[in-house]
Amino acid sequence: MQERLRIAIIGAGYWGPNLARNFHASPDWELAAICDLDGERARRVADQVGNVAVVTDLNDVLTDAAIHAVAIATPARTHHAIALAALRAGKHVVVEKPLADTREHGDAMVREATERGLVLMADHTYCYTPAVQRIRELVEEGALGDILFIDSVRINLGLIQPDVDVFWDLAPHDLSIIDFILPGGLRPRSVSAQGADPLGAGKACVGYLTIPFGAGAIAHVHVNWLSPTKIRRMVIGGTKQTLVWDDLNPQQRLSIYDRGVDIERQSATSVERKASTVSYRLGDTWSPALPEHEALALMATEFAAAIREERAPRTDGRAAMRVLSVLDAAAVSLRAAGAAVPIEEDLPDLEVVA
Amino acid sequence: MQERLRIAIIGAGYWGPNLARNFHASPDWELAAICDLDGERARRVADQVGNVAVVTDLNDVLTDAAIHAVAIATPARTHHAIALAALRAGKHVVVEKPLADTREHGDAMVREATERGLVLMADHTYCYTPAVQRIRELVEEGALGDILFIDSVRINLGLIQPDVDVFWDLAPHDLSIIDFILPGGLRPRSVSAQGADPLGAGKACVGYLTIPFGAGAIAHVHVNWLSPTKIRRMVIGGTKQTLVWDDLNPQQRLSIYDRGVDIERQSATSVERKASTVSYRLGDTWSPALPEHEALALMATEFAAAIREERAPRTDGRAAMRVLSVLDAAAVSLRAAGAAVPIEEDLPDLEVVA
Amino acid sequence: MQERLRIAIIGAGYWGPNLARNFHASPDWELAAICDLDGERARRVADQVGNVAVVTDLNDVLTDAAIHAVAIATPARTHHAIALAALRAGKHVVVEKPLADTREHGDAMVREATERGLVLMADHTYCYTPAVQRIRELVEEGALGDILFIDSVRINLGLIQPDVDVFWDLAPHDLSIIDFILPGGLRPRSVSAQGADPLGAGKACVGYLTIPFGAGAIAHVHVNWLSPTKIRRMVIGGTKQTLVWDDLNPQQRLSIYDRGVDIERQSATSVERKASTVSYRLGDTWSPALPEHEALALMATEFAAAIREERAPRTDGRAAMRVLSVLDAAAVSLRAAGAAVPIEEDLPDLEVVA
Amino acid sequence: MQERLRIAIIGAGYWGPNLARNFHASPDWELAAICDLDGERARRVADQVGNVAVVTDLNDVLTDAAIHAVAIATPARTHHAIALAALRAGKHVVVEKPLADTREHGDAMVREATERGLVLMADHTYCYTPAVQRIRELVEEGALGDILFIDSVRINLGLIQPDVDVFWDLAPHDLSIIDFILPGGLRPRSVSAQGADPLGAGKACVGYLTIPFGAGAIAHVHVNWLSPTKIRRMVIGGTKQTLVWDDLNPQQRLSIYDRGVDIERQSATSVERKASTVSYRLGDTWSPALPEHEALALMATEFAAAIREERAPRTDGRAAMRVLSVLDAAAVSLRAAGAAVPIEEDLPDLEVVA
Repeated sequence: MQERLRIAIIGAGYWGPNLARNFHASPDWELAAICDLDGERARRVADQVGNVAVVTDLNDVLTDAAIHAVAIATPARTHHAIALAALRAGKHVVVEKPLADTREHGDAMVREATERGLVLMADHTYCYTPAVQRIRELVEEGALGDILFIDSVRINLGLIQPDVDVFWDLAPHDLSIIDFILPGGLRPRSVSAQGADPLGAGKACVGYLTIPFGAGAIAHVHVNWLSPTKIRRMVIGGTKQTLVWDDLNPQQRLSIYDRGVDIERQSATSVERKASTVSYRLGDTWSPALPEHEALALMATEFAAAIREERAPRTDGRAAMRVLSVLDAAAVSLRAAGAAVPIEEDLPDLEVVA
Repeated sequence: MQERLRIAIIGAGYWGPNLARNFHASPDWELAAICDLDGERARRVADQVGNVAVVTDLNDVLTDAAIHAVAIATPARTHHAIALAALRAGKHVVVEKPLADTREHGDAMVREATERGLVLMADHTYCYTPAVQRIRELVEEGALGDILFIDSVRINLGLIQPDVDVFWDLAPHDLSIIDFILPGGLRPRSVSAQGADPLGAGKACVGYLTIPFGAGAIAHVHVNWLSPTKIRRMVIGGTKQTLVWDDLNPQQRLSIYDRGVDIERQSATSVERKASTVSYRLGDTWSPALPEHEALALMATEFAAAIREERAPRTDGRAAMRVLSVLDAAAVSLRAAGAAVPIEEDLPDLEVVA
Repeated sequence: MQERLRIAIIGAGYWGPNLARNFHASPDWELAAICDLDGERARRVADQVGNVAVVTDLNDVLTDAAIHAVAIATPARTHHAIALAALRAGKHVVVEKPLADTREHGDAMVREATERGLVLMADHTYCYTPAVQRIRELVEEGALGDILFIDSVRINLGLIQPDVDVFWDLAPHDLSIIDFILPGGLRPRSVSAQGADPLGAGKACVGYLTIPFGAGAIAHVHVNWLSPTKIRRMVIGGTKQTLVWDDLNPQQRLSIYDRGVDIERQSATSVERKASTVSYRLGDTWSPALPEHEALALMATEFAAAIREERAPRTDGRAAMRVLSVLDAAAVSLRAAGAAVPIEEDLPDLEVVA
Repeated sequence: MQERLRIAIIGAGYWGPNLARNFHASPDWELAAICDLDGERARRVADQVGNVAVVTDLNDVLTDAAIHAVAIATPARTHHAIALAALRAGKHVVVEKPLADTREHGDAMVREATERGLVLMADHTYCYTPAVQRIRELVEEGALGDILFIDSVRINLGLIQPDVDVFWDLAPHDLSIIDFILPGGLRPRSVSAQGADPLGAGKACVGYLTIPFGAGAIAHVHVNWLSPTKIRRMVIGGTKQTLVWDDLNPQQRLSIYDRGVDIERQSATSVERKASTVSYRLGDTWSPALPEHEALALMATEFAAAIREERAPRTDGRAAMRVLSVLDAAAVSLRAAGAAVPIEEDLPDLEVVA
């Protein structure tokens, strides 16, 4: 049995307790401290997991040589400063989504981690759920064939966030999942964003992202704070099969349909193609059994493994930057009435942690 | 009992038999003839409804003074020529959706009918279903309050049409329904269309329309021929209540949720608003019982009533033109990478039939 | 191409039009006549299928040597007399469910047909649906293993029938299906029936049948006229896999679950068994694609094939008698407060048609 | 603010942690100790809620005068001995379901509590869920009218319990809920039980209870350990409206249907009734919003209130005895091939706590 790595949780708000519980329970980790400016709040989180130190000054964590890593669960606008300080103090860092509040901030974080040879990981929690893990495997195995379209809907009556719009609040989930399951990650050509603020909340509460990628494929994301019905469904259409993930149906989260349209691509003329070469498959449906595990537990395991094996974690800073790039371009598109905004290639001169 | 009006069906293809059956069964109508270039095909439709004349030459219908009206169910590109000929022959006309294949063609049809004082009706069948009739009533009564957003999904494994893309094939349903239920009809500021042809079919098989309307409201339509799961659902969010129409759930097609977000709009500053004036309602859900009737039967009744009362029918040519305007602008947007395309005001110099 | 067999429909009520339409459309059959005491009613059915003779006197059918078979769709209490007359006139007979109103009547019908070498078939329509055909195949192939339990629910707000209770109205469907899918048919040891008439309708409107069969297996049927929600679901549990048939979910009617409980049966003592030999499988779910065909069309084909091949049809008179035996015993049990009533073996001295 | 009552949890197995968490969090209670023969197990539960004493000897709890009450979450066969000891030590007692393993044992517990003026409560947890609380209110208000039938299904792939069959494992939930919502509690005339052990597990794994009550009404319970699909649904049919509770549909747990059958009961003859007086209502459906609270928290509150107000709690020992009586009779019926077994009136000479 390897020695446990020691971690501190920075931020005892909404997400902190979940991180605390999972790092506490992980065989890879020793939960060393809960850090929050509000000591009382930190104390409540610490109490839930037994005897864990409570710290109100971040420096006490950063100067503690026995602490290997920090998990940052503070508001997004503070991620950049805290993460840079932690990296400069030699700590590995995992950050709650989104990685940062701007592309520039995220960029600086990735550079800092890369230069220092430290792990910078994004807590894209959904990627560690049994469902998304299985989807990634199925795509990798080629069960779906080439991906033709991805349609993701994430709507319910949600809290109108004070500091971010519905895109920044919800779409990081969809984007990080799509990035995770596409071989090579999400590398779109452009993004268009359409939003509405019909209540006059001062920010988009209903939003749509359109993201062309690959050779004619398209991803589309619908996020909505105003829907009284809750839907969390992603359809991933492939040339071979199509997968539907309905996260609110615990009895059948994943369904793989052996149904689709086949078009003979090599046909000489479009006239011939129209006339003769479209065919339909109407095959069986299949729903794989999923193991049961908590996503955050697997995330904690992956974080430890990446540190020990000196490799990039599955949801590394670069994956987070791809998500951030789309969000950033979406914000530009939103201000430009939905015009398609090109996505810059991701950081070409950076090496993954090694 | 009034004397029955006499009608001929033009086109014995996919939709013709449904029109034949309903006009045959209607107490308002006498089905006088089935007209199709393919006499054999017309004969099969005629046989299904008993003794009805079969005609292969359109002129035989148009010159028959005992025929008051025609129902056109031929391919969209032929609507314009047939409708103009029928109107010029003094016949009232109902046309299968879409009204015409271009805005100009539709425009000419509306002008012709207006000038001649004839009824030109669009067979927007969905508008005559019990569900949509009820939705219109609820909106009219103010049960939903002001409309904030409309999200419509119409996806399934569909036939790739030889002559139209997925927008022209499926979106007329969504657009005509939205036009029908919005007081004053659908009068958007602009439309953005994003499509994908990931199979290389030569036309969009996956499509998204974004349609801002009113003061900050938004409508969005998702049409898709490549989805193995069938979804036909529209969410209509209002300031008071939100309605969900799930057309594939016959046991509960309509659900009205007394849930939502309330924002005090008059708050002095955005800071105050953020802090204090967002509240949530989590009330009951209600599902109205719907009468059972066939949509086409009600459409036939409305067509007869409009003719007799010398008024515009509920889904008149101008409603069809509003749908056509959006489709037309969508086609432009599609070629412009989804850029927002303004919608021209509808025909200002035209009077409704009277 | 074989010459078509000629059939007359007896009874132009609720079910007659469906029979007329399907025998009319069948390549195996020529629909020769519609017979009903009410000539007007017969005429309406005949009109729907084109030129078919209308007959008001049963003898005109029975004495017509050109007619090979009759389909009886009259009230259940008349089945016996009409079927016997038809058989004695040398006609093959298919009878709407239930075969007869009493076990004795059904018995006499089966004997008459057997003695005359004529086909007597029960129109157990559900057995000819794609779903039930597939279930039978799966059971035959051993995909489910040994059958452990069958739970069938058929409830909705139904018409309270004037002459039969909810058992005789609805349970023939469930029983004929169960008989069809069990290898060797449904041969229960006994049946218990519990019913309730909470509205004072004069007959059971809510009913439950419990039917032990095989070595410890159990079938249970819930029929209910008073339920505002409609459920039509059958769960068939096997040692290998379990099948769920949800007839109201057209997108996934059949689901086969590779989940279950395994018990090592050979364990020496019950103490050991308890301690160690129960295990669980939590495997995948699979939903086979089903062909689309109308059940009555397949029934008509099977009727013709049985006549031509001089064999018993799949749902022959003996199958109908097994259903009738359960209904008959259920009526006895109902009067005896639900006591288990043994089921007599079916007719041992009868040969199938040959 | 009143002083908190002090409670000890007896049994740190499956249910103990839930009790510990809720009594710990309750403003009415102070969690004084976790008692289990296995000190290690007790320690783990205690750690989860912070600083709580761990006790391995029950006497240490019973002799601690500062402890007012105990919550018993040990195996059912030990409830009787522990509860009697606790009551004799002057402690109020709440017991996990079922109250006891036999009717006699439960009887003795109720008598002991009554004689000593102590609260004996059954932890019928489901009765304290928001859904069941609301159902009870609706029945009390008369929203459903007279209850005609109750059909409860509780099936899924369940653990085969070593010491109890499926009736004793699952049906206490259904029975306690039915007892809770019926005015005056569940007072059936008789019970019939049908079970099957198709796997040779040595006990019923599939079970059906039929319970006639009132004037022609019927309750039916289906419990099943072998079903791969999970269903938890109760239909409560009334003369006015019918309620469906689908516990696995968090978005619409309760639906009240204004649909049903009306029969004029006063009609002179059955012939007339059949002919003319059955009518159907097909009205709206309504789904009440439910508050969110944890059932055990409300149970803990009710336990404290009953102690302080010196009254019987809502799920008192007598309610538990009614449940036990049905289970007891069911066991007799099961051995008698499903014969109807009369239910004895409940304890006539006992006074509720006062």
